[in-house]
Amino acid sequence: MDRETYRQIEAYMLECMQDSAHDKDHVYRVLYGAMSIARDETVEDMDVLIAACLLHDIARAEQMADPRVCHAQAGALKAYEFLLRMGWPEAKASHVRECIRTHRFRKGEPPCSIEAKILYDADKLDVVGAIGLARTLCYNGAMNEPIYSTAPDGTILDGSGEEPDSFCREYRFKLEKVYDRFLTPAGAALASSRRQAAEDFYRAVLDEVRGTLAQGSDVLRSAIEE
Amino acid sequence: MDRETYRQIEAYMLECMQDSAHDKDHVYRVLYGAMSIARDETVEDMDVLIAACLLHDIARAEQMADPRVCHAQAGALKAYEFLLRMGWPEAKASHVRECIRTHRFRKGEPPCSIEAKILYDADKLDVVGAIGLARTLCYNGAMNEPIYSTAPDGTILDGSGEEPDSFCREYRFKLEKVYDRFLTPAGAALASSRRQAAEDFYRAVLDEVRGTLAQGSDVLRSAIEE
Repeated sequence: MDRETYRQIEAYMLECMQDSAHDKDHVYRVLYGAMSIARDETVEDMDVLIAACLLHDIARAEQMADPRVCHAQAGALKAYEFLLRMGWPEAKASHVRECIRTHRFRKGEPPCSIEAKILYDADKLDVVGAIGLARTLCYNGAMNEPIYSTAPDGTILDGSGEEPDSFCREYRFKLEKVYDRFLTPAGAALASSRRQAAEDFYRAVLDEVRGTLAQGSDVLRSAIEE
Repeated sequence: MDRETYRQIEAYMLECMQDSAHDKDHVYRVLYGAMSIARDETVEDMDVLIAACLLHDIARAEQMADPRVCHAQAGALKAYEFLLRMGWPEAKASHVRECIRTHRFRKGEPPCSIEAKILYDADKLDVVGAIGLARTLCYNGAMNEPIYSTAPDGTILDGSGEEPDSFCREYRFKLEKVYDRFLTPAGAALASSRRQAAEDFYRAVLDEVRGTLAQGSDVLRSAIEE
């Protein structure tokens, strides 16, 4: 890809994301993560991979405005039309469309080409490790969700049971399980190298809060009952 | 303190905090943290300490509605009047007022009594360690502030320079420096035991993001210039 093409695609991405300033940090992490994975995989079309990374979240604003819109579906179409307008061959533009359409794969159609698999893994890479936890906590804060939930008797829950949404529940129900879902060996290895940092932080939060509660409640009990 | 008095003060706290559901988790952490510290310090009036912990943030809503209001000043007065209505002796109620008034001490009047020092330390304990970072990230998300800032050349900044507000900047300019500001030996020891978890997480976030950028940018550079 020549520099001018990169600049044009980047400019279109920034234009689509002007309402959500920090999402572009995510886009660059996905792009650079995909490039890291690409070092160890045989990529057939780097142009497609770069364009798909830059454009994968360009319909976030549409999904935010109307939750029935899937940003992967809508973004795939937007990217396809943009690339055709830029003069890209139909085959390349539709390859980018497929990468973006399947980057959110849970059920149904999985990412097929190596470019689609790398985009999927690079996007997942941003929910693992310390950066994944930091992003999750920012999201919790924006949604006004707590760090942990408390049982009626005051016990601090660890997120593993049937409990209200919280950072700890997100960690135990989603983040902790993502490590097994990578599609490329290089993506899985990168994710694995970040796993301990995430586990340590989750544990430290719980240990600190539960430790203080355990120590303090003995003292409080005797102060209240005396 | 008898159980009924505790229940009444707790109920008043919950009533004052009904608009900010998760602040009560903070209040309980401060209460139990204060009790932990109290194990190792000679507390003269446990009633004052317990009431001051429960009521220290009851004017958060007033400060949120009007940033010119200081929640420590306003909360101190609210707590004093509430305790007098409950029939507390003036000396005890005004001691609680002093604890709450000085719990936010930066300049000016420092916490004087042991109860005031313990409340101050217990409140600070909730900004150190993993729980302090988790709370900071939730706040960043709610304020729509980023995890880190990026220089014009794409370098990821570590928060130590003159840069826009971010999680990393908050860590380097405030959180990292709190450990030296505890007023009781027990508070300082508890804080110190949480320090490594915070430092490790901050480092892991930066290392992950910078590592991916460094690895990926080489690949991207050759893909764009080829």
